[in-house]
Amino acid sequence: MIGRPEPLHDIAHLGSVELLTPKPDRSVWYFRDVLGMEVVHTDAGSAYLRGYGDYAATTVKLTAARAPGVGCISWRTASPQALERRAAAINLTGLGLGWSDGDFGRGPTYRFRDPDGHLMAIYYEEQKYRAPDHLRSTLKNLPMKYAGRGVNVRRIDHLALFAKDVAVNRTFAQQLLGFQLREHVLFDHGKVEIGSWLSPSPVHHQVAYVKDLKGGSGRLHHFSLWVDNREDVLRAADILAENGVFIEAGPSKHNNSQGFYLYSYEPGGNRIEVYTGSYLVFAPDWDVVTWNEQERGMGVYWGGALPESFIAYGTPDVPAPAPAPAPTARMPVFDPY
Amino acid sequence: MIGRPEPLHDIAHLGSVELLTPKPDRSVWYFRDVLGMEVVHTDAGSAYLRGYGDYAATTVKLTAARAPGVGCISWRTASPQALERRAAAINLTGLGLGWSDGDFGRGPTYRFRDPDGHLMAIYYEEQKYRAPDHLRSTLKNLPMKYAGRGVNVRRIDHLALFAKDVAVNRTFAQQLLGFQLREHVLFDHGKVEIGSWLSPSPVHHQVAYVKDLKGGSGRLHHFSLWVDNREDVLRAADILAENGVFIEAGPSKHNNSQGFYLYSYEPGGNRIEVYTGSYLVFAPDWDVVTWNEQERGMGVYWGGALPESFIAYGTPDVPAPAPAPAPTARMPVFDPY
Amino acid sequence: MIGRPEPLHDIAHLGSVELLTPKPDRSVWYFRDVLGMEVVHTDAGSAYLRGYGDYAATTVKLTAARAPGVGCISWRTASPQALERRAAAINLTGLGLGWSDGDFGRGPTYRFRDPDGHLMAIYYEEQKYRAPDHLRSTLKNLPMKYAGRGVNVRRIDHLALFAKDVAVNRTFAQQLLGFQLREHVLFDHGKVEIGSWLSPSPVHHQVAYVKDLKGGSGRLHHFSLWVDNREDVLRAADILAENGVFIEAGPSKHNNSQGFYLYSYEPGGNRIEVYTGSYLVFAPDWDVVTWNEQERGMGVYWGGALPESFIAYGTPDVPAPAPAPAPTARMPVFDPY
Amino acid sequence: MIGRPEPLHDIAHLGSVELLTPKPDRSVWYFRDVLGMEVVHTDAGSAYLRGYGDYAATTVKLTAARAPGVGCISWRTASPQALERRAAAINLTGLGLGWSDGDFGRGPTYRFRDPDGHLMAIYYEEQKYRAPDHLRSTLKNLPMKYAGRGVNVRRIDHLALFAKDVAVNRTFAQQLLGFQLREHVLFDHGKVEIGSWLSPSPVHHQVAYVKDLKGGSGRLHHFSLWVDNREDVLRAADILAENGVFIEAGPSKHNNSQGFYLYSYEPGGNRIEVYTGSYLVFAPDWDVVTWNEQERGMGVYWGGALPESFIAYGTPDVPAPAPAPAPTARMPVFDPY
Repeated sequence: MIGRPEPLHDIAHLGSVELLTPKPDRSVWYFRDVLGMEVVHTDAGSAYLRGYGDYAATTVKLTAARAPGVGCISWRTASPQALERRAAAINLTGLGLGWSDGDFGRGPTYRFRDPDGHLMAIYYEEQKYRAPDHLRSTLKNLPMKYAGRGVNVRRIDHLALFAKDVAVNRTFAQQLLGFQLREHVLFDHGKVEIGSWLSPSPVHHQVAYVKDLKGGSGRLHHFSLWVDNREDVLRAADILAENGVFIEAGPSKHNNSQGFYLYSYEPGGNRIEVYTGSYLVFAPDWDVVTWNEQERGMGVYWGGALPESFIAYGTPDVPAPAPAPAPTARMPVFDPY
Repeated sequence: MIGRPEPLHDIAHLGSVELLTPKPDRSVWYFRDVLGMEVVHTDAGSAYLRGYGDYAATTVKLTAARAPGVGCISWRTASPQALERRAAAINLTGLGLGWSDGDFGRGPTYRFRDPDGHLMAIYYEEQKYRAPDHLRSTLKNLPMKYAGRGVNVRRIDHLALFAKDVAVNRTFAQQLLGFQLREHVLFDHGKVEIGSWLSPSPVHHQVAYVKDLKGGSGRLHHFSLWVDNREDVLRAADILAENGVFIEAGPSKHNNSQGFYLYSYEPGGNRIEVYTGSYLVFAPDWDVVTWNEQERGMGVYWGGALPESFIAYGTPDVPAPAPAPAPTARMPVFDPY
Repeated sequence: MIGRPEPLHDIAHLGSVELLTPKPDRSVWYFRDVLGMEVVHTDAGSAYLRGYGDYAATTVKLTAARAPGVGCISWRTASPQALERRAAAINLTGLGLGWSDGDFGRGPTYRFRDPDGHLMAIYYEEQKYRAPDHLRSTLKNLPMKYAGRGVNVRRIDHLALFAKDVAVNRTFAQQLLGFQLREHVLFDHGKVEIGSWLSPSPVHHQVAYVKDLKGGSGRLHHFSLWVDNREDVLRAADILAENGVFIEAGPSKHNNSQGFYLYSYEPGGNRIEVYTGSYLVFAPDWDVVTWNEQERGMGVYWGGALPESFIAYGTPDVPAPAPAPAPTARMPVFDPY
Repeated sequence: MIGRPEPLHDIAHLGSVELLTPKPDRSVWYFRDVLGMEVVHTDAGSAYLRGYGDYAATTVKLTAARAPGVGCISWRTASPQALERRAAAINLTGLGLGWSDGDFGRGPTYRFRDPDGHLMAIYYEEQKYRAPDHLRSTLKNLPMKYAGRGVNVRRIDHLALFAKDVAVNRTFAQQLLGFQLREHVLFDHGKVEIGSWLSPSPVHHQVAYVKDLKGGSGRLHHFSLWVDNREDVLRAADILAENGVFIEAGPSKHNNSQGFYLYSYEPGGNRIEVYTGSYLVFAPDWDVVTWNEQERGMGVYWGGALPESFIAYGTPDVPAPAPAPAPTARMPVFDPY
């Protein structure tokens, strides 16, 4: 084992995700009234929200924009020193955008883009949530009262990003952020990397890169919020249906990640997942799970198929590419989550 | 933040737990036929088992003994270098027992005792589980088939150890093993540490130290196995009841840790928990949650009380101590898990 | 089988329950905001509510009163002819109170008292619920939108009444109402009937009579509302706890009835159960299940004990009786639900 | 309401279903080892099984045959008198086949065919299950131990039959058996009856008739077994998948009936449903729920579509009919269950 570098632990976890929405009021309705999140702060053009189990003051930011999509994706580091180390390393890649004062509830922040163009940030100082009296839980170790409003998601979990070149972005996440690769889908005898799932912690994945078949850049496939039990996901489906929210797929179980999923579109157009299940990865020398076309199938463990929109649609939406050359044309349907 | 040391990530996770049992055949029946674990290996006096979701070849070892209790508690390190670092650090404390070749499925192992006398070990090299054909899952990322036999626990989760002096053992786990303290119970205006819950990973706790009111040493309070949903725990209660296994407490929800618990005694006498829920801790600067007598109450979030045996009984069992001096006599009932 | 009378099918189901409350505003808060029921009508001193799955306009009536307790318990008959038959039969017993116009949403109603003095009514004409637009479900076979507010109970299920003489009231329900006896608890070698569970339909029980150890009359033990899954009951416990509602017992599983229970006190003082599980009884010649002291135990299938209040407390509360004579004093704890 | 006949209560419930299978050994494996039913009796060519919650000795009969399909469908009457009444009434229709001694565990039985040709029987005398010691439950009101083997279905629930003419068969069930119509699907402005769901008890439906698009006769769409919670259905999907059983659809939720479904094919070829949810119907004057093409949609409440096989396939399988005339060709996809 000589020469094998030790695992890097500089990134602690996904800190927050900013979503862009052309219908900010309706998007707030979706996250607050349907998913049951709490609005903790608003400023010009943005609302800041949280799940009852998130320890930080805010984990979701909704920002008015002309088109839907993902804004800044923020990662918390494990220490101030880790922040310095990561910023320095990213700076060398030429993808850095420099330091800023930090968004609401955050200290000094270093911003950069991943190779596909998604805006990201790292920071260490974080304002923890202090619930006002009416939102204080009777459980001392719960940051906020469980209100029993709608789906009542607990916390943010992960996101999936489209990428023109999955391998390049996956490598960036491994080498610059220190993420561990958990599973990937390789087509055409291992030559085409269709999707890769990575994480900085035992959580199965906090980010996935999946092939953008339309050739866009910086696009979002979906953003995912956690509930504790599969029954909560089933209940969520009832609540979404009663509220007229479009359900694209699920509830069902992916083979890859073993995640129990439910995908809907928030009014702004972004694909949102209510999620549970999956599995924790503790092995420091985890053997990456590789799926080929046949093993991957439709991505649904119990059979059935995901709708075509699940492969084609992301935010912002872009026109379909010109007629695809042969290799792309033969690419089977796959399921990036 | 100058001078604050960075978090230590040398221990990856709880690797295995050895339980001592005076009724080895019946204990195997409990873990295999009732809890649904798989026996992967046996040798003189010991059976090695696993949950279908454990990645390692084995995670539970049942060893015939005159009295029940806990044998060796093993932790996997994050790297070979981490193993060397931890062994060296522990060696300096005088609690080290030295290197050995490793048990079934393990490489070089360094053994030691915690201050209370529990036998522990650290190792890095681990044999991963390769399922034989009849136990291979149709899910490529699942190490073993989900057989649907009895409770069918997924993996090991944590254990709780009695200790004469909780603070000393908790400090050892923090400083020598790098565990993060998640919650603790402090009585008598913070002067008496009744219980502490610690972990090397986002899992809420992988070990707890709780006050041994009988003044024993090296004793076990309980060992805990994970299922994915609360409904699985309810189903487990039905299965235990149908099999005539004594249920001591639950299913119910702790306030501390938010764990959803079910405690029974395996035939050898050890207290075993079927467990889910709780919460993951991602914050590198987690604020320890402190409970006093009033906040802690009976340890049951939804009300009701744990039985007295839950405080008094551990393995091996020891006689009740001589009449307790005043401070102990005033000690309220608490719930160590 | 000559001479054995055919089963009577004149009563279709429990139609509604009126609860008396000294804190009507707080009681409405409990049923509407915490349990998630809908207020469909109010008049002088009363609020009329419903669960989203109840087909009738209203199933629960909250009426301001000096003390808590149960008001009128209404049963719907299977036909107009059945209504006439039952009224005539009850009239012969001398327990009849005569005909009235019917309460909100009801046609002609015949009122009476059971032998213990509980006020009851039978009726056939029932106003079905027609949801206003904002409460219309996207499911055509669901009477009302599933709002996802708090516990969101589906429908009323059953009630348990205290009685000085269980056998007399049980016989009345069998002979005059045509209910089938499902289970009973008999102590002292079958000589003392402690509790009996009866139903007019495959639902396990819609009424139970349980021994009033305080010797009151016309008192309520509890009233029960249905949710579809055990996980809903667990979630209900979290919601009750977060809202500061006193949880007396559960969630857990009764041996008798196999019901999965959660008992809390609504602000007016009445004991309310959130309930699921149990089993349907289809056999026209059902063999009554009989429990003696030992078999009954504490009434909790998985072990543990119900609190003493569960036996002693009912509404309205009454003073404890004078020192009990020997037979009563020896009476073991039991669990009437 | 003068002249309106009173509801008929002569049929108590679905008593048993016989399935024909060309692979009897494999079919027994499916029902016993995967679904967790118990084999209680075998004789020449048939195995008799039960769910742990069924009160009768046996509820499922597997009979070796050249092709899959449904054999005799048996209904228990509410009384001996009811049996005589129903036999006499059916006899008048010319569909009667006469009396026989009754199958295993049954008394005198009257057999007949429904208009589409399905073989049916009614009986009153029923042998209740008496568990041998090793299968006795620790719950006195449970007929048999909950073994925790595989899916461990509780009891039989309902079946769905193909019919060339749904209206004729639906009317037969209403008038001759006294079933209440709960929901139906009417296409082409109410002129084409596509499916009807009926029951003799508050259980939503115990039989459904659905249009046989292939013009066969006496064919089975599916047979359904009950579990208590939605989580049990999800777990069933995992178990089916691990055992290589083909899952055709689900787990998901129907709009019609609100049933939570999971359809697989047992090795003999019959479609079997693991089922929960739905709703009880208590109203003696239930307003039939009518669905047209648009309301019915794909039959899945949460969106998505059932596979084409779900409409086309039944047992025994028959060749596709000759090119359909215009009306059939325009018939939209529907979901009979």
